Amino acid sequence: MTYCVAMRLDAGVVFLSDSRTNAGVDHINTFRKMHVFAKEGERILVLMTAGNLSISQSVVNTIREKLGARGNNLDKVKNMFEAAKHVGDCLREVHGRDAAALEKFGLDFSSSLILGGQIKGEEPRLFNIYAAGNFIEATRETPYFQIGESKYGKPIIDRVISTRTSLDEAAKCALISMDSTIRSNLSVDLPLDLLIYERDALRVRQHVKITRDTAYYGQIRKQWGEHLRQGFAELPDPDWETL
Amino acid sequence: MTYCVAMRLDAGVVFLSDSRTNAGVDHINTFRKMHVFAKEGERILVLMTAGNLSISQSVVNTIREKLGARGNNLDKVKNMFEAAKHVGDCLREVHGRDAAALEKFGLDFSSSLILGGQIKGEEPRLFNIYAAGNFIEATRETPYFQIGESKYGKPIIDRVISTRTSLDEAAKCALISMDSTIRSNLSVDLPLDLLIYERDALRVRQHVKITRDTAYYGQIRKQWGEHLRQGFAELPDPDWETL
Repeated sequence: MTYCVAMRLDAGVVFLSDSRTNAGVDHINTFRKMHVFAKEGERILVLMTAGNLSISQSVVNTIREKLGARGNNLDKVKNMFEAAKHVGDCLREVHGRDAAALEKFGLDFSSSLILGGQIKGEEPRLFNIYAAGNFIEATRETPYFQIGESKYGKPIIDRVISTRTSLDEAAKCALISMDSTIRSNLSVDLPLDLLIYERDALRVRQHVKITRDTAYYGQIRKQWGEHLRQGFAELPDPDWETL
Repeated sequence: MTYCVAMRLDAGVVFLSDSRTNAGVDHINTFRKMHVFAKEGERILVLMTAGNLSISQSVVNTIREKLGARGNNLDKVKNMFEAAKHVGDCLREVHGRDAAALEKFGLDFSSSLILGGQIKGEEPRLFNIYAAGNFIEATRETPYFQIGESKYGKPIIDRVISTRTSLDEAAKCALISMDSTIRSNLSVDLPLDLLIYERDALRVRQHVKITRDTAYYGQIRKQWGEHLRQGFAELPDPDWETL
């Protein structure tokens, strides 16, 4: 499986993805799931993928192929809504090619994408694109999207994130959400791709790969675990007389 | 949906269940999912159910019907392994009656049960019984089971619970795990059933219903939420130079 999360805040957008892909426990591999399409000073688009890896790769390849060619593409689209439609179209192209063949083998056409970023003249925007190529956009009330193994890491986001959260705080929350997922689900694992997009920067200042050797990740994992255990110790014990 | 969790510790067993049942968002109701079969001084068995409500109720009714009658039943079984087999048999009886008819309506025979407790002469034991009537038992390495919407509340258990955890600590952890689930998933909700079984007591000393008005639950929810937010504030911000 996969776990990816993106948060659209007043200050910008935070993207985090893992890199584990599996087709059964004996087929576990590492693939990047974060793809950046950038024209400095004009547009930054970040795409994250979950679901069937062959579909994800075909979508990314289809998008890339169109970049240089005639017709609509991510370098030309005028705004993020057009960008989401374009990615949806590319997904539908892959569906047209593969879905019937997959079905013959009893395989779902499973794909879920997160597309976020900013095109000059607009605010940063964030979309969740479904397998059918339709999509929804993040709002002030629901400023984040998750794809893949999303449930383990959802409670911590629900408790912490609002659009006013700072980029650093949101990055920490995304990393803790990822750590909770990794601890509880074997099919999600390091290395991670973390990308922080600052509103109106129109270029990527922070994009890092996080591995087992990344000291900062180890540090916040450890500190967070200790904080949680300490929190339990501090919670009052149930008083069975009054409960 | 449902969320139930049970933890088998050195000190006893903790059981917690929610009470929400839904068949679509316009059919949300409250049903108890925790059922206690007790003979003080001799045996305490606690059954929690998830899945299709009609199956859960039929299983519980089948178990109860057999209690007074001839043949094997939960009042007679000599140990917890026999008890789990008996519950599995009752589930298979319901499967025999209902599965084919459900299938005609495109419905899975979905059922997942947790059975735990103690019968005199044995240690407390805990089982997870699947829809097919087969089951697994909790071990020192994996001392807890969850059924229903289990993913949201799993990370906190994975971080906190070992067999050496005290009953009060485990009860707090179960309640926080439930609170995380309730916050992130509409289909799980109060009231809750919390039952603490102390090893070798062979009777239930603590079995409480927790509602919105239960002061203790409100208190630990609030304190825990504050503790998490404070924890984030204390985590070091990422240092992008060295990351």
